[in-house]
Amino acid sequence: MYSFKNDYSEGAHPNILQALVETNLVQESGYGEDQFTQKAIELIKSHIGRQNVDVHLIPGGTQTNLIASSSFLRPHEAVISADSGHINVHETGAIEATGHKVLTVSTKDGKLTPELIQEILDIHTDEHMVKPKLVYISNSTELGTIYKKDELVSLSEFCKENDLIFYMDGARIGSALCSKENDLKLTNLPDLFDAFYIGGTKNGALIGEALVICNDTLKSDFRYFIKQKGALLAKGRLLGIQFVELFKDNLFFQLAEHANQMAEKLAEGLKEINVPFLAESPTNQIFPIFTNEQVAELQKNYAFEIWEKVDKNRTVIRFVTSWATKEEAVEQLITDVTKLVQK
Amino acid sequence: MYSFKNDYSEGAHPNILQALVETNLVQESGYGEDQFTQKAIELIKSHIGRQNVDVHLIPGGTQTNLIASSSFLRPHEAVISADSGHINVHETGAIEATGHKVLTVSTKDGKLTPELIQEILDIHTDEHMVKPKLVYISNSTELGTIYKKDELVSLSEFCKENDLIFYMDGARIGSALCSKENDLKLTNLPDLFDAFYIGGTKNGALIGEALVICNDTLKSDFRYFIKQKGALLAKGRLLGIQFVELFKDNLFFQLAEHANQMAEKLAEGLKEINVPFLAESPTNQIFPIFTNEQVAELQKNYAFEIWEKVDKNRTVIRFVTSWATKEEAVEQLITDVTKLVQK
Amino acid sequence: MYSFKNDYSEGAHPNILQALVETNLVQESGYGEDQFTQKAIELIKSHIGRQNVDVHLIPGGTQTNLIASSSFLRPHEAVISADSGHINVHETGAIEATGHKVLTVSTKDGKLTPELIQEILDIHTDEHMVKPKLVYISNSTELGTIYKKDELVSLSEFCKENDLIFYMDGARIGSALCSKENDLKLTNLPDLFDAFYIGGTKNGALIGEALVICNDTLKSDFRYFIKQKGALLAKGRLLGIQFVELFKDNLFFQLAEHANQMAEKLAEGLKEINVPFLAESPTNQIFPIFTNEQVAELQKNYAFEIWEKVDKNRTVIRFVTSWATKEEAVEQLITDVTKLVQK
Amino acid sequence: MYSFKNDYSEGAHPNILQALVETNLVQESGYGEDQFTQKAIELIKSHIGRQNVDVHLIPGGTQTNLIASSSFLRPHEAVISADSGHINVHETGAIEATGHKVLTVSTKDGKLTPELIQEILDIHTDEHMVKPKLVYISNSTELGTIYKKDELVSLSEFCKENDLIFYMDGARIGSALCSKENDLKLTNLPDLFDAFYIGGTKNGALIGEALVICNDTLKSDFRYFIKQKGALLAKGRLLGIQFVELFKDNLFFQLAEHANQMAEKLAEGLKEINVPFLAESPTNQIFPIFTNEQVAELQKNYAFEIWEKVDKNRTVIRFVTSWATKEEAVEQLITDVTKLVQK
Repeated sequence: MYSFKNDYSEGAHPNILQALVETNLVQESGYGEDQFTQKAIELIKSHIGRQNVDVHLIPGGTQTNLIASSSFLRPHEAVISADSGHINVHETGAIEATGHKVLTVSTKDGKLTPELIQEILDIHTDEHMVKPKLVYISNSTELGTIYKKDELVSLSEFCKENDLIFYMDGARIGSALCSKENDLKLTNLPDLFDAFYIGGTKNGALIGEALVICNDTLKSDFRYFIKQKGALLAKGRLLGIQFVELFKDNLFFQLAEHANQMAEKLAEGLKEINVPFLAESPTNQIFPIFTNEQVAELQKNYAFEIWEKVDKNRTVIRFVTSWATKEEAVEQLITDVTKLVQK
Repeated sequence: MYSFKNDYSEGAHPNILQALVETNLVQESGYGEDQFTQKAIELIKSHIGRQNVDVHLIPGGTQTNLIASSSFLRPHEAVISADSGHINVHETGAIEATGHKVLTVSTKDGKLTPELIQEILDIHTDEHMVKPKLVYISNSTELGTIYKKDELVSLSEFCKENDLIFYMDGARIGSALCSKENDLKLTNLPDLFDAFYIGGTKNGALIGEALVICNDTLKSDFRYFIKQKGALLAKGRLLGIQFVELFKDNLFFQLAEHANQMAEKLAEGLKEINVPFLAESPTNQIFPIFTNEQVAELQKNYAFEIWEKVDKNRTVIRFVTSWATKEEAVEQLITDVTKLVQK
Repeated sequence: MYSFKNDYSEGAHPNILQALVETNLVQESGYGEDQFTQKAIELIKSHIGRQNVDVHLIPGGTQTNLIASSSFLRPHEAVISADSGHINVHETGAIEATGHKVLTVSTKDGKLTPELIQEILDIHTDEHMVKPKLVYISNSTELGTIYKKDELVSLSEFCKENDLIFYMDGARIGSALCSKENDLKLTNLPDLFDAFYIGGTKNGALIGEALVICNDTLKSDFRYFIKQKGALLAKGRLLGIQFVELFKDNLFFQLAEHANQMAEKLAEGLKEINVPFLAESPTNQIFPIFTNEQVAELQKNYAFEIWEKVDKNRTVIRFVTSWATKEEAVEQLITDVTKLVQK
Repeated sequence: MYSFKNDYSEGAHPNILQALVETNLVQESGYGEDQFTQKAIELIKSHIGRQNVDVHLIPGGTQTNLIASSSFLRPHEAVISADSGHINVHETGAIEATGHKVLTVSTKDGKLTPELIQEILDIHTDEHMVKPKLVYISNSTELGTIYKKDELVSLSEFCKENDLIFYMDGARIGSALCSKENDLKLTNLPDLFDAFYIGGTKNGALIGEALVICNDTLKSDFRYFIKQKGALLAKGRLLGIQFVELFKDNLFFQLAEHANQMAEKLAEGLKEINVPFLAESPTNQIFPIFTNEQVAELQKNYAFEIWEKVDKNRTVIRFVTSWATKEEAVEQLITDVTKLVQK
């Protein structure tokens, strides 16, 4: 049984474990005031090319989203998201649990546009309705798609014009930035977003997301919110050490590139034998369509997500690759699918 | 500079790191559905001698307290705590942020009694006031004291008689159970408490607390609450692997015992030279009193917490020892204090 | 200028004011423990034909919805509503502000069906998503439509089978029950719903909604929730006196019938001159379609809501009638529209 | 049986009912956008001598406190209150239910001082604790005491210096301002407070409190908060009409003066026969001490609150007078107590 279920099936990249072992007995301050966290923050600032941002290391993605949203918004303000957005579907109402409505628009590719946001603004006009305030996007999206730079520029300008906070969930920003179709750089992000996070968990870390707050008005007292939601680790070094490893050289990008290459190889292998896809995805999640019988057969040797039904007989499934995906496993999967399809 | 500031200044016990390294490339399901977490849960059940409990591994202590409280309580119900309780003082209003008031009583030693709780019940009699419902204790307490078994039995009976949920914050339960004055066993806990947690972070783990829910009525849907608060780690294995190491043999207890021995050695060394103490503490936190000048001198070579002023000239400080505290460091500290005191 | 903007443009029915004047100096207990509130509760129980229900008088509708939802639900549970539902659109995120997500389905007529609810249940299957728990309907709906008895029976059975709480917002239940198309009685409601409310504000009272809790498991400690949300009026008599007047004879129904007759007369008058409608509404809200020029002309002498654009040139507006709507005003409006349409 | 239980035992002052009757059929906009509410706001601004404030009419006191606090504060910020403060004791955790901790200090007379607040500030120094931000006082207090002008000036200056929001619960501000010992004027309040409310319910209205927001930074979007908490009445006129009556002449003050005179007469009558008091109260709540037997005897003919036990044999009770208290009833009570005491 080999798993293409997600990008967190294995532990951490060996460099990270090595660093944890080597630094283990160094005494450090708690709660993110250790030297490793400080070093990680400096490295991240350097990679994004900006010093006047605040960087906070937070254990998980749902946590980062809920802490950021609830600290940035006043009680009557709402989040705008694609209806496929992670905060809308797969966080068990975490945003609402902090008191805020998530307003959604339907999209084909998981991506927001100024026009879609304008529709929300048009119908929220007075105090009988929530006030739309924070625009949430994920990049890459839950459907594996990515935003091109000009799409983000127009969204960013739209948000500024409409006094909206522009926020990016970067759980898979590594994969997005290393996509063949990508034209965005890490150094563009501070100009585009009021805040965003760089995901570690889905790109080789054990845990950890680096939240970057660019807008000065959102920075104050942020550590209070991290603590109040239970996300200020006593041994904050665990986060710091990992992000130092990811960003002291280019490990973060190397890992994402490997994940993308494995996905691309897999997609190309399947396309060659005419397996259809739900949509084009240039990142580490791909969505092929199989008959229900083929799916059942594949499940005997592979773990993956059932995504949705196409019709009575066919099903979309999701294959995810990661920094740890073995090339032989991809090749074996292509071989196995080939046999299956050609039966 | 040597730190006696807390019990999370170092990383994890080497066995834990070793296990992380060895299991690193095993593919596992996410979100605590991995084999390591399942194994850890079985080991914990075995150590506490009860099968019909639910065990959940959660990254941190504040998180565990807020998830448990907010899932156990209805909106009008309140927590009862000693005014020195961690949830009342040092969690940035985490409980209130989930909507619940913390009712407090003043204590000398950080310990609740049936009489103190009764005072709260007596004045909360109708719908114009919150309804006291969950009794929060910590063991060992924030002052280093521990509950004797008969004290817990009487508290437990009182809670049952008054339809109160009895909950123990066990961030330092290891140190409590290994205290020389202790007469409580891990196997007693399920009979005494509706829920409690066994702390890993302050006893040799990188992160991780094991919440044990004993009362059947509090068990349902608990994973929803963990997820909603952002505490369901994608790589749940990180928690599972650590607790397997702590409980597969008796590492958990060995680590706590070392911490206690170091504290005891330190306390005895200081008492011999007539350093006064705020109170007797039989666990890994001790509270000696020094003159302000002595404190300033000690700060040159040691890190520790300033606890409180005794008067204009004297200050209580806190020394904490851990699984990683070096005996030589304790000896050196005694030597240094001796010189200081005898100047 | 005559207003057809809503059913709360005037004060209270004169009988209600008369009763307030007559009872004014009687000394009474506060917080709904007065004799009038007790009398009102008995009258309501008698009208709905059930004694084993709990009745609470609450100032407003949004308040009633938010208090009921937040007290009935555990933190991870969500509300299911039509996307046009009042709680989803026009309560400024009141439900989310208490921590609960509102899951929506799109409908043409504002009405839920078992099939629509099933769609929600089908995609909410584990702890990564909220747990759908309370089904919210309004009757009459925000579009003026009503539920027939058999529709409610099938919804009620569906809810029981799926362990869902079935709740009715009855802000306009008076108008629904007095509709010509209605086959539902007040005495049916306790069998159908776990809880529902009977709206006073939109049917002749100054303020006040009567929440009826039928399901025993939802009854306990409910006055705590009313108080905590600031809805337990010191002078609860203000609510009691009004509901006594509405239900001591049949004033409640007489008022709703008048409102419906005025709406029907208006609708028929407009249909005779071929004014098109958005949809059939058998209650006190009707939705005719006019050209933008006609709307502008009508606004000179009448107040009403702009509902939505049909296309570039035409607009749906909403006329609402009430217990206080004057027949002459309806006749004048028909005359004025006739002139306008025939220009 | 005559009630001295509270100042909301009767309905409204007859002028108010008269105005409700006279304006009943005037059609008005909903949600506080009616002419009466606008008129009331102008009158209140005129009485307090300031135009650049925002005034909102809100049904109840708990509601006003919870809406103001939750809209003024960010999630990690806390309220400071005397431990006897209404929000701390008698609002069923309404403030905590919006997510904010209430920090308390013990006082003898229910009054805060800069020194008492400083104590709270001194121990809340970092992100592991909540951040004290809003200072809540009530005037008159829950113990019937009042703040002198210089006390408020020093509190106000202290708050400004420490970047704290200064807020007054004025449920009984009428009685405070009309106290013989008072040297404060309504026109002083905008200079002293960031926000405060003028209580109607306990001074002759059916319902209604007028919240005055003086600090510009707290004004924006406030109607959203009122709506979200369910406090934006559809028939907002009910609040507007009442406050017009209270403030178009000096009815508000006349009513409070009557209440105070009745309390003073009662207190003097009791002092003449040497009945002891818990404390001096110069407002409409007085706290005499009787033996338990005397209390039981009084309960046969009078309703009042049991306040607290002095010792085994004696009990403090509370008598409250109001705009509606009859002088004959006060005289009769004095006569009855005299007989009782001299038995």
